[in-house]
Amino acid sequence: MKMVTVKEKAIAGRASFLEMSKSTSLQRSKALKILARKLAKEKNRVFIENAKDLQFADKLVSEGRISEALIRRLKVDKNKLKEIIEEVESVNSLPDPIGKNLSAMELDKGLELFQISVPIGVICTIFESRPDALVQISSLCIKSGNSVLLKGGSEALHSNKILAELIRESLEEAGLSKDSVQLIETREEIAELLKLESIVDLIIPRGSNELVKYIQENTRIPVLGHSSGICHVYIDKYADMKKAIDIAYDAKVQYCAVCNAMENLLVDKSIAEKFLPKIAEKYRKAHVEMRCDDASIEILKKKGFDARPANAKDWDTEYNDLIISIKIAGSLNEAIEFINKHSSKHTDSIVTENRKHANEFLMRVDSASVFWNASTRFSDGYRFGKGAEVGISTGKIHARGPAGIESLMTYKYVLSGKGHIVADYAGPKAKAYTHKKIKKEFRFT
Amino acid sequence: MKMVTVKEKAIAGRASFLEMSKSTSLQRSKALKILARKLAKEKNRVFIENAKDLQFADKLVSEGRISEALIRRLKVDKNKLKEIIEEVESVNSLPDPIGKNLSAMELDKGLELFQISVPIGVICTIFESRPDALVQISSLCIKSGNSVLLKGGSEALHSNKILAELIRESLEEAGLSKDSVQLIETREEIAELLKLESIVDLIIPRGSNELVKYIQENTRIPVLGHSSGICHVYIDKYADMKKAIDIAYDAKVQYCAVCNAMENLLVDKSIAEKFLPKIAEKYRKAHVEMRCDDASIEILKKKGFDARPANAKDWDTEYNDLIISIKIAGSLNEAIEFINKHSSKHTDSIVTENRKHANEFLMRVDSASVFWNASTRFSDGYRFGKGAEVGISTGKIHARGPAGIESLMTYKYVLSGKGHIVADYAGPKAKAYTHKKIKKEFRFT
Repeated sequence: MKMVTVKEKAIAGRASFLEMSKSTSLQRSKALKILARKLAKEKNRVFIENAKDLQFADKLVSEGRISEALIRRLKVDKNKLKEIIEEVESVNSLPDPIGKNLSAMELDKGLELFQISVPIGVICTIFESRPDALVQISSLCIKSGNSVLLKGGSEALHSNKILAELIRESLEEAGLSKDSVQLIETREEIAELLKLESIVDLIIPRGSNELVKYIQENTRIPVLGHSSGICHVYIDKYADMKKAIDIAYDAKVQYCAVCNAMENLLVDKSIAEKFLPKIAEKYRKAHVEMRCDDASIEILKKKGFDARPANAKDWDTEYNDLIISIKIAGSLNEAIEFINKHSSKHTDSIVTENRKHANEFLMRVDSASVFWNASTRFSDGYRFGKGAEVGISTGKIHARGPAGIESLMTYKYVLSGKGHIVADYAGPKAKAYTHKKIKKEFRFT
Repeated sequence: MKMVTVKEKAIAGRASFLEMSKSTSLQRSKALKILARKLAKEKNRVFIENAKDLQFADKLVSEGRISEALIRRLKVDKNKLKEIIEEVESVNSLPDPIGKNLSAMELDKGLELFQISVPIGVICTIFESRPDALVQISSLCIKSGNSVLLKGGSEALHSNKILAELIRESLEEAGLSKDSVQLIETREEIAELLKLESIVDLIIPRGSNELVKYIQENTRIPVLGHSSGICHVYIDKYADMKKAIDIAYDAKVQYCAVCNAMENLLVDKSIAEKFLPKIAEKYRKAHVEMRCDDASIEILKKKGFDARPANAKDWDTEYNDLIISIKIAGSLNEAIEFINKHSSKHTDSIVTENRKHANEFLMRVDSASVFWNASTRFSDGYRFGKGAEVGISTGKIHARGPAGIESLMTYKYVLSGKGHIVADYAGPKAKAYTHKKIKKEFRFT
């Protein structure tokens, strides 16, 4: 069998994307319907291939090389498959994102400009050992008319292969090019792919911070993602005590291993004596380790709590663990400045009953998501009502914050004239532009 | 005098951007009003500094080192200054781009999510010897709450210095930080700046293709711009002959030295015998050199026209000159495929009276701007009704096509709750999200 290089795959992906631009919404939807049925029908093939991955993973666990948690994420059983199928149906039920009229303007009589949403092109996603992620991102790309190159974890190799095969079959049966979805299998291929900036339009890494950082630092292709989630909660002088405790607890303890969990807790000095012992009591019960600045350590020690001093590095560390850095802020302004220095621009929250303080915080904190009286843990595509999540971006260009299917779209300008030429709008007898917003919509079909 | 490094300037720019987030629309507007008055009042200082640049440039022209055209672009006289002032006023009259509500959704009772437009942050623009560009881009950045680092051509050094000084004074007089606008003076500083991806958010190069290419290839900071403009016009089988000739002439001849001029002309084979001699007659009068494929050369030679064969490189060349590559296309499909291979994804146009053909072209051509019966020369921020133009982007991420002040904006998500925590939405007794679109608007002030 001839090896297909990653460049050949990328070129095939671009050709498929251009082919896909001929397809109708109905055809793309048909592919997803076929896929949902096929996954149900071919479930035994999926389970058999998944079992191979699980068997190998079990061996790695017994050798202590991977964690039990990874096995859980790898496993595709009857329930998981049902979820996967529901996800395909849920993506298919989203409105067609292609051809939306974003703006329309008459430039002159008979010369009309439309800004229309279109797919971006060739997307590459890299994810860890969750076969369901493969199906989800493929469904999103099919729905939105993009081509996708998929690199899953090597632990899920067999599962990924069978799932990609079923997706490609579904595309073909719907009359679409199967190369809209292609697998990439090795790390070496990723290194090659990072150089293909003239073919690949966007990379979406969904994995460890190290993976995302590696990709950001080694490619000129735009990257949608975040390499760290250092989120803050600031308990303002005018905070409601119950809300403050609930939110500071939820943001750290409800699930600490994720990017939208809080890492740094800032407490206004005027409320610290009252607030800190209360939250510390709850943290103690939840086995949260506290790393504190001098002022907060003093308050906590007085009340008999165990707290170690934070070092300079702690304020810039994403623990992803039951550890929290705590600092007293002299004022709202000091808190905002601290956050703009140490936040990874992911999500930061203020707890206050004072609307003026809230607005100042929301306006001045330079992060993708800024919250008022809500836990940072809400920062997530599903919770934000976007359906499937493509990723969470800490970049400011293109998608920012939790990103849904809309982040797989760009736009093009369609100008419709009647033989209009620029020469008529130049020189001493130049015609004038009307530049009038219009309500009209443009349709490709 | 202590030299300020470019990194220090970038850091000061970021600090200024964060300071600016406290400012009101009124203050930013005040700065621009002061600037407009100041430019009028201090016109003699501007003329004196500009004269220094002109004197030096004259010397370079007499030595044959720069062109006369450059002098014209460098010169700031009474009329030019009037235009510059009008441009400041025009930017100031744009609606405030900050704080626009882009979407709003209730996640649950009392938990509301708003997507709000905000400035990107620290922008760097690099432009050639047009002092008016400095004022225009600075005005756009002040209006939109961004910080800007400006690198102008060294020929305009004195003019740029006085203009930047007046802008910085205006900022200060309006109570804003003057470091929102800073000059960068050397090429070495640019090389340094390209490494500052953690501070600089966006680079906008407005210069030669080589400059843009150099920047794209040497930084991981997002770049808004285009390194080439290889635009196509396709004369379809169903083209109206007059429109075809007008557009093919205008797109090449009206002004050939610009990115939105046509470089490749495709003609459907069924209309070529009729169309080609007519356009060739007009091109001959305008001294346009024709480089043709075999089929078109045959037609033209039969009619006594002078045409040389195109070589493979011609189809990928931006002439920016009175030269045109001409090719016969066997079908609409062949034309679309040719364009998707050779276009720089800037602007491509179809001339046809057949709506189905037009739609297929508009849908399938993967370019920022796709035109129907209109000259490619319309692809421009001013003509598109955007007021001032930031640049024209051939990238697909963030801004695409002619980009106005909206391309200096990103958004943030503002979530407003009443102490909401994620724990309530997890586990067996999980509350459900409502995910209901709402009409409500959020205001920072």
